[in-house]
Amino acid sequence: TTMGTRRLLLISNSTLHGSGYLEHCQDNIKSFLGSDVNRVLFIPYALTDRDGYAAIARKKFESLGYKVDSIHEQPNAVDAVNNAQAIFVGGGNTFRLLKTLYDQQIVSVIKKRVLEDGVPYIGSSAGTNVATKTINTTNDMPIVYPPTFDAIGLVPFNINPHYIDADANSKHMGETREKRIQEFHEEEICSTVLALREGCMLLVEDNKATLQGVTKARLFIKGQSPTEHDPGADLSHLLK
Amino acid sequence: TTMGTRRLLLISNSTLHGSGYLEHCQDNIKSFLGSDVNRVLFIPYALTDRDGYAAIARKKFESLGYKVDSIHEQPNAVDAVNNAQAIFVGGGNTFRLLKTLYDQQIVSVIKKRVLEDGVPYIGSSAGTNVATKTINTTNDMPIVYPPTFDAIGLVPFNINPHYIDADANSKHMGETREKRIQEFHEEEICSTVLALREGCMLLVEDNKATLQGVTKARLFIKGQSPTEHDPGADLSHLLK
Ligand SMILES: [Ca+2]
Ligand SMILES: [Ca+2]
Repeated sequence: TTMGTRRLLLISNSTLHGSGYLEHCQDNIKSFLGSDVNRVLFIPYALTDRDGYAAIARKKFESLGYKVDSIHEQPNAVDAVNNAQAIFVGGGNTFRLLKTLYDQQIVSVIKKRVLEDGVPYIGSSAGTNVATKTINTTNDMPIVYPPTFDAIGLVPFNINPHYIDADANSKHMGETREKRIQEFHEEEICSTVLALREGCMLLVEDNKATLQGVTKARLFIKGQSPTEHDPGADLSHLLK
Repeated sequence: TTMGTRRLLLISNSTLHGSGYLEHCQDNIKSFLGSDVNRVLFIPYALTDRDGYAAIARKKFESLGYKVDSIHEQPNAVDAVNNAQAIFVGGGNTFRLLKTLYDQQIVSVIKKRVLEDGVPYIGSSAGTNVATKTINTTNDMPIVYPPTFDAIGLVPFNINPHYIDADANSKHMGETREKRIQEFHEEEICSTVLALREGCMLLVEDNKATLQGVTKARLFIKGQSPTEHDPGADLSHLLK
């Protein structure tokens, strides 16, 4: 891969049940970052305990052979993004994360670095939501009010991470996840939604998109019935 | 009760598992509206099928002895609120509901009618969220972007409807409801959250607040451990 090629690894969830932090996707991360990258810029804004979060991310990435700089330890966030070899945006609360990215004025800087300079971007959960077109399909509680729901826009569709199938035995009357995505598609302004079950991730290399992981993804296109897609499936048509 | 007294019935959920629409709370509604009210103004904005939604609400309220006018059938929404004897705001998507209330310019009109004129307000689910201080503690997906998360403000705290306890057997790694509310309380600007389990509702008469229904509520005050409250409990201190 050459500089200037869009490269994204958009992970549904950082931790799979019964497994350690980023353990289920560590081979994907290593293969994605390769040996050209030495340092990863970590963005911990989705959680409030940034020091604690950076320590967890640092430990994991160092075990894979990469140094971690956390953006909150840097003197200037814009400079940190401009100097990054690779970017990893961790999960937590999507509203808090997006609001802080705007507060720090790095939304357009990340977009330029990834789309024009080919800086590899890894997102997990909320970090995946903010990489897409909008955060309209986050599962998180709207604990803070961001200036817009428009996100970084590294892909022209939405993702729903942590996708979960309806539980036929549940007596709870809140909307199922599928119903929530259907409500989004009832709106005039909406996007295609790629729903990534836990254990699933999307690899984007330039104009090629491939499902990775151990679970299926469910694709919601407005006006069509949802479709199921296996690991390895080519979803490049979503990038057009 | 005289005109000028705040009167609210804030219901967690319109439909309890295994029961019909508003069936579990129909006695509470009848006792709340009493015999002085003849007509109820229904606000169906949380769903897109307003005709279908109004038909469902009309059927139920007529069975209880009340006529229903749906605001979407009225020539002018502001006039409809100004002429209402009572207001019922149905559930659906809270973001869509709040955005439409602002688009129709009736947020402050509803507030004046309820707080100054004593018009009884019934909310269910999303209709309960918008009655409170903000929609920061809705469970819904943010499918549209409202101009603010500030809601009608009929009470000075937040409600989380459809509250659900953590399932110890779940392998899903998304945040539990309690964790989501704790994330809200990590923010500098936040409010007390009254979490209403399905089957639970809050009756407010002037400066007296009482839990009703068949399930407990869980109260989250920033910096304190959550507390459990039985049906019948006096929560008037939350109104101060
Ligand atoms: Ca989250
Ligand atoms: Ca809802």
